[in-house]
Amino acid sequence: MDTIEFRKRGKEMVDYIADYLEQIEKRQVYPDVEPGYLRPLIPDSAPEDPESFEDILQDVERVTHWHSPRFFAYFPTASSFPALLADMLSGGIGCMGFSWASSPACTELETVMLDWLGKMINLPPQFLSGKDGEGGGVIQSTASEATLVALLAARTKAIHRVQSENSELTQGDILSRLVAYTSDQAHFSVEKAGLIAGVRIKEVPTDDKFAVRGSALRRVLDQDKAAGLIPFFFCATLGTTTCCSFDRLLELGPICNAENMWMHIDAAYAGSSFICPEFRYLLNGVEFADSFNFNPHKWLLVNFDCSTMWVKKRTDLTCAFKIDPVYLKHDHQESGLITDYRHWQIPLGRRFRSLKMWFVFRMYGVKGLQEYIRKHIKLAHEFKNLVLQDDRFEVCADVVLGLVCFRLKGTNELNEALLKSINEARKIHLVPCRLRGKFVLRFSICSRTVESAHVQFAWKHIVQLASELLKAQRQQQ
Amino acid sequence: MDTIEFRKRGKEMVDYIADYLEQIEKRQVYPDVEPGYLRPLIPDSAPEDPESFEDILQDVERVTHWHSPRFFAYFPTASSFPALLADMLSGGIGCMGFSWASSPACTELETVMLDWLGKMINLPPQFLSGKDGEGGGVIQSTASEATLVALLAARTKAIHRVQSENSELTQGDILSRLVAYTSDQAHFSVEKAGLIAGVRIKEVPTDDKFAVRGSALRRVLDQDKAAGLIPFFFCATLGTTTCCSFDRLLELGPICNAENMWMHIDAAYAGSSFICPEFRYLLNGVEFADSFNFNPHKWLLVNFDCSTMWVKKRTDLTCAFKIDPVYLKHDHQESGLITDYRHWQIPLGRRFRSLKMWFVFRMYGVKGLQEYIRKHIKLAHEFKNLVLQDDRFEVCADVVLGLVCFRLKGTNELNEALLKSINEARKIHLVPCRLRGKFVLRFSICSRTVESAHVQFAWKHIVQLASELLKAQRQQQ
Repeated sequence: MDTIEFRKRGKEMVDYIADYLEQIEKRQVYPDVEPGYLRPLIPDSAPEDPESFEDILQDVERVTHWHSPRFFAYFPTASSFPALLADMLSGGIGCMGFSWASSPACTELETVMLDWLGKMINLPPQFLSGKDGEGGGVIQSTASEATLVALLAARTKAIHRVQSENSELTQGDILSRLVAYTSDQAHFSVEKAGLIAGVRIKEVPTDDKFAVRGSALRRVLDQDKAAGLIPFFFCATLGTTTCCSFDRLLELGPICNAENMWMHIDAAYAGSSFICPEFRYLLNGVEFADSFNFNPHKWLLVNFDCSTMWVKKRTDLTCAFKIDPVYLKHDHQESGLITDYRHWQIPLGRRFRSLKMWFVFRMYGVKGLQEYIRKHIKLAHEFKNLVLQDDRFEVCADVVLGLVCFRLKGTNELNEALLKSINEARKIHLVPCRLRGKFVLRFSICSRTVESAHVQFAWKHIVQLASELLKAQRQQQ
Repeated sequence: MDTIEFRKRGKEMVDYIADYLEQIEKRQVYPDVEPGYLRPLIPDSAPEDPESFEDILQDVERVTHWHSPRFFAYFPTASSFPALLADMLSGGIGCMGFSWASSPACTELETVMLDWLGKMINLPPQFLSGKDGEGGGVIQSTASEATLVALLAARTKAIHRVQSENSELTQGDILSRLVAYTSDQAHFSVEKAGLIAGVRIKEVPTDDKFAVRGSALRRVLDQDKAAGLIPFFFCATLGTTTCCSFDRLLELGPICNAENMWMHIDAAYAGSSFICPEFRYLLNGVEFADSFNFNPHKWLLVNFDCSTMWVKKRTDLTCAFKIDPVYLKHDHQESGLITDYRHWQIPLGRRFRSLKMWFVFRMYGVKGLQEYIRKHIKLAHEFKNLVLQDDRFEVCADVVLGLVCFRLKGTNELNEALLKSINEARKIHLVPCRLRGKFVLRFSICSRTVESAHVQFAWKHIVQLASELLKAQRQQQ
């Protein structure tokens, strides 16, 4: 394909995407497919000779429509036109930004965009790069990677600290005594990070709001320290995946600081809401943290992947991958002016992802983004009020942002059956969670184009299926 | 931005990218910028109100042109029009493929594409998924992540094996005795993986071809086992970053198998060449390996990111993130029919990246891709022959694929000065490496559009700068 054909096909693809997104609502939100459906539909091996573009495009249809306004599952996944355009450009330029030298613009725009976004959510200035700051931000692929990077940085720091106090201990001795903590509601990526890093992760019990309180952390710390363990890391969650609960940073932060524990904050979903002044209070206490992360690729209209992470001390990250910190001591490349992002992350290669932030922030403006966040939260409250008006249902957790956890009053089996009938009807798509053993349905405001009418439709549909289910149940009894 | 504006702007962007790539040769390959250049050029914080598309686009120009036919640095980074189109589509669909259920098409196309590619390079059938195979492939973001995932899988397996033989040993005891090995020419990502996983990595000395031989591995294994260590992992490299040397799989594989060591093969760059029957011999011995990885996003025209990894036993990966393998024992989701790729990788979220393979393989056909690989290799040999004809220069390593390592006969300082003058002239771009203490220039055939004329131009330019340098040096003496 030469540039002449690319001009033609590229424009066709733009129209295809625009058509797809315009008509997405007419498509069944979840496909009717069984495992293994695809293999018989396509050839067994790659063609020897080139095929035409027309043949290829018609094969792409049977997907899950994550951006349908009737998709209420998981959390939102960002999709906006400015981000799509920026991503096209990023692909066209196709540079690799693993070091400053490899692509200065790619590196420097990222640093400045992370400062922009940090200011938008009013992060304390220690987290910003500025001209000569010790902190700064980086785009990771996912929140899982941000958690892992923070944990690895904390592990290296803890090993050095303990060894400096106690030089006869080997690294193995120390590793076997290190303990990291997180909420019993935290995402499984925290446990996975622990498994990768080879350190123990303990769950701290949450209160009746599904939040970790200072007192709960204090209790496990005292027990573990008495047992000879070394607490070194706490991963707080703002906006848990299960029910969007918020750990109490203002109670937890001072404990972490006093105990020399790294505090990382995972606000993957909720973080985008902090650009609205009225929700910024949820981030209070971030001043105690060492690292903070959220995913603009969830709720800030920047298409995947774009998980933004900030640290107070960039050298904590850049030294994390070297047990011997002398490695970087004489390296002028960490002067503050030159950033080599390969030392801030697990992978080496990286796309020019900050272009997406650049396009989205400028084409929406902060006000446009705030409006978008507020609309989602308003719709969630609208749904919550519908649930509350039907006393066969209950709301299972505080609705703070765009997620409503609800269920039929009754058994787990009943609610499992309700979810099954909802998802089999294919009109809307939801996923469940478990809260203290209860099977709960999650209604998450996801799509960029979701409106009140979709929420009202979804609720009517759920009520109808629930009524049929309850009726069938009564008849069986 | 609504779909109407997206149709307009998207088509402008297609033209912008086509113009950019058509005229890339006229652009200076490396920008004239100093660290910190960007910050003063753009505002301090995000705009409150939206800005226009025109304002935004004009800010994007000063980048490193990785796809210029005068870019000969690092290794190639893939860029092709079919991949750009597929990536646009992937962004438009915007699904998340972390589990089969979240996006069946995204998961199943990936499985089939990995089988296609596996067949293209004639991988042993154990590495393919087929309908009910135990092996299979996955798209990782980068080769670094593939190495890390393989190392973690091997670590878990080794811990279980040693514990089953020796139940009084703790995980900490075992970890402190595990040793992984790789070539002294291997990419630093192997060492980084070791640091992340908390296991020792030892370098095995290479021979005069910069290759690890069986005898060299045998020697270190015997020493380490006598010292009570437990060898568990060997990362072989096919096509090292420094000089594109090849470890001797046929000697190393049987040793790894006999010693119960996991053999991972990193062929990040070289792997793409194995689609040509005449280069497939370089992969002989892969039958001994547990995992194999290469980057179509380097040399197979599939834009970043697309790092393909295969394993013989998928459960080795899916159990890697669980120290207790019971976790997955009763999970019907690993039946072979349903694949949840989140258990095959570090991150959770993932784009619909297999679309890029789908588009590229079909629009080029295997023959088109073979032609492309052969063209690059031919150009590298053309350059090598130019170097050999000038007896002031030497070629420093065998030229097997698209990389030529060369230098002026003489001191490192002389060659450092030569590289400096080349890169400061900004007409071409190269990066160096060190081979046994020698400072060496790497000439890597990178661009999709590079032709003999560019190679001839580059050599003339290098010769001219070298002559000036040698003249100045003589005058100083």
